[in-house]
Amino acid sequence: MRKQVLSILVENTPALLSHVAGLFSRRGFNIDSISAGVTSNPNVTRITIVTSGDEQILEQIEKQVAKLCDVIHVQILDPDKSVTRELMMVKIQAHDTDRQSIISITEIFHGKVVDVTKDSMIIEVTGKQGKIDSFLDMLQDYKILELARTGLTGLTRGSEDVYHVG
Amino acid sequence: MRKQVLSILVENTPALLSHVAGLFSRRGFNIDSISAGVTSNPNVTRITIVTSGDEQILEQIEKQVAKLCDVIHVQILDPDKSVTRELMMVKIQAHDTDRQSIISITEIFHGKVVDVTKDSMIIEVTGKQGKIDSFLDMLQDYKILELARTGLTGLTRGSEDVYHVG
Repeated sequence: MRKQVLSILVENTPALLSHVAGLFSRRGFNIDSISAGVTSNPNVTRITIVTSGDEQILEQIEKQVAKLCDVIHVQILDPDKSVTRELMMVKIQAHDTDRQSIISITEIFHGKVVDVTKDSMIIEVTGKQGKIDSFLDMLQDYKILELARTGLTGLTRGSEDVYHVG
Repeated sequence: MRKQVLSILVENTPALLSHVAGLFSRRGFNIDSISAGVTSNPNVTRITIVTSGDEQILEQIEKQVAKLCDVIHVQILDPDKSVTRELMMVKIQAHDTDRQSIISITEIFHGKVVDVTKDSMIIEVTGKQGKIDSFLDMLQDYKILELARTGLTGLTRGSEDVYHVG
């Protein structure tokens, strides 16, 4: 059981996402995270799914996803040959006396303060999952009010393994 | 027809994502983007969906999503009272002579170069959709090889409207 990142290029059709998600759920595969947004071709969306499961079953899923009629291309992102990132926004309970310390931690992780009120702050951090988890560890002394993560997205390194959609 | 951002807190169950996505597709609602990742409670995932459609039907969808058995909380994010962000990674064809100019554009948008090869660069940029679209406009003279967007995620501002999951 290890984490795998699937990158799927699909035509924009309303039913497609539920078909892809349905394939995973019928196999009892949990989707750890999913992110999907349009590519440089407005008719094509890239869906990135992080899942953990037996490698053999995952290969079967990859093949089944590829067979769905609006799927253009499926790829398992090799961690050594790809760059993956996610974005997290976290709202922390913070009064006057807490702010400077939270800002210092945020700077170390190259994060940004995106909202401040009298008793709260929202911080934005991007990175690999490990970096984001370390940032959350550093905030253990503060109360987390709300948290939103986009889930990973990613691309292969270099220009060799490019699938053209435009 | 305007863009709406739905923020949905759900229990982590394999079938849930396909149920949520299925609701949208049965109503013919296109999902412009979706992002989903775990919250500070490891059993709870936040799904953020951007959709465009008639406001009345969207309210119906909101109610129907809320009725799904593993859904904890649903909220339409008011643009004036929330902070939304997304992350984009874009791979550009770039040789020696292009690099400095691409780096300059990236700096203006507070982006980061996350990979460089002899003939390509991967840039990471975060922001609201408008900022990301402007960044892509600035890159029109370069060939985009691949593009991945996480889709929006977001939180309400301040500490009043917080739904506790922990």
